[in-house]
Amino acid sequence: MSKRDRPIGIFDSGIGGLTVVREIIKQLPDEDIIYFGDTARLPYGNKSAETVTRFSIENTKFLRKFGVKFIVVACNTSSSVSLPTLKRRFNVPIIGVITSAVRKAVELSQAARIGIIGTRATIASSCYQGEIKRINPRFKSFAVACPLFVPLAEEGWTDDQVTLEVARRYLRPLLAKDIDTLILGCTHYPLLKNIITKVMGRDIKFVDSAEETAKEVKNFLLKNQLYTSRNSHPRICKFYVSDEPAVFKKVGKRFLGKTIKSVKKVCIN
Amino acid sequence: MSKRDRPIGIFDSGIGGLTVVREIIKQLPDEDIIYFGDTARLPYGNKSAETVTRFSIENTKFLRKFGVKFIVVACNTSSSVSLPTLKRRFNVPIIGVITSAVRKAVELSQAARIGIIGTRATIASSCYQGEIKRINPRFKSFAVACPLFVPLAEEGWTDDQVTLEVARRYLRPLLAKDIDTLILGCTHYPLLKNIITKVMGRDIKFVDSAEETAKEVKNFLLKNQLYTSRNSHPRICKFYVSDEPAVFKKVGKRFLGKTIKSVKKVCIN
Repeated sequence: MSKRDRPIGIFDSGIGGLTVVREIIKQLPDEDIIYFGDTARLPYGNKSAETVTRFSIENTKFLRKFGVKFIVVACNTSSSVSLPTLKRRFNVPIIGVITSAVRKAVELSQAARIGIIGTRATIASSCYQGEIKRINPRFKSFAVACPLFVPLAEEGWTDDQVTLEVARRYLRPLLAKDIDTLILGCTHYPLLKNIITKVMGRDIKFVDSAEETAKEVKNFLLKNQLYTSRNSHPRICKFYVSDEPAVFKKVGKRFLGKTIKSVKKVCIN
Repeated sequence: MSKRDRPIGIFDSGIGGLTVVREIIKQLPDEDIIYFGDTARLPYGNKSAETVTRFSIENTKFLRKFGVKFIVVACNTSSSVSLPTLKRRFNVPIIGVITSAVRKAVELSQAARIGIIGTRATIASSCYQGEIKRINPRFKSFAVACPLFVPLAEEGWTDDQVTLEVARRYLRPLLAKDIDTLILGCTHYPLLKNIITKVMGRDIKFVDSAEETAKEVKNFLLKNQLYTSRNSHPRICKFYVSDEPAVFKKVGKRFLGKTIKSVKKVCIN
């Protein structure tokens, strides 16, 4: 098979990366996809950079077995703490979800004041903050970790008084900073957009990494002659997870926006 | 070294099992302890029985390397879903935290109506419910999963309006059941005792598995000639974790009730 017709590999700590898959499906209708969700070891967001990098290397090795032409690290925590190591270590193009989100945020923010919310590990890495500074040193960034957002989203309390109160508490420091753009630096957070809007006000502009990352994937493939040569090809999407597939299939539907037909459990370490 | 003077091995998905260590230290002043917290792969509570059992087998193998005379599964989820497999597979006495807690609850409950709260996996296993029935079929049990309790406790919101509201919502079904005794079926929950009391009322009797399990360990060791022969021996307590030790050391202090001097990171799989 010619290199350009090989699948795209995507991994995440679990289920959230399906939002990236959804956007890639929308924007790249002929590409095959191999997805791996590390559901046995999730979450990554409160673990050390060293451990998340060890897991990310194992996930990348697993995807490489499928001869993928390109790898997307759909997890914000992995992207924040492991991307340089992965790029150094593997001879395959790899992108994360940080750069494209930051580029979009810088484009959107007229006040040149950007907020970032994410897991504890993502925020502690200062990865978003550094990338904003790199792209435009004039911009100010303000970051807050929101550790309870993932469990609340997974509990399904996405439109709930409790979640609203938690959001108020986490986002209060950002409210004082007069930001006009907010990066949702975790794949689960788009599920809480309504709640976050209630706290931050209707004028806030959201940057959701999934959409921006899919655009970046498309650009990269086109620029590097890696865009598939096939047309109207019946797309192959394969999903692998490290824990039982049942929950992934059920909850994943909400993230992917459609039914996941088949998910296979694998042991990758 | 004579068998009876070997250390006791204890494992947990992370940090919560330190409450069991604290009780063992109190009740068994001369026993050496090897503790393993699987902080790289926590939490176990929302993962499948199969995966939790795979992890528990690896944890047990790790403890066996120290020649432990006895193993305590301090994690409620592991105890609920993996104990029979571990007992079948390993030639060392192993106890979990379920049986002793149930025995205490049956002793305490005058109404013969016991509530159980735990992680999703623990409650789904029906392990507590089955054990109550086995010990006294006359007793009624009512179980509720409280998935947000662990992240709330780890966020440190142990005396908080948000946590109170979450507790109200989770515990409402139990309030209607006229229970007089409540098993805290997760090592994190004792941290939320105040909040749970506010919802359930001052008359509720709590069963905290840590204390009961330490008593069971003592009884077992005495009955089986495995109680250490040493007196006023300077106790050796070794702590191992699978993620970085820093957070474990810091947060662990709250669970252990004293400073943890040294923690080693190990890769067990």
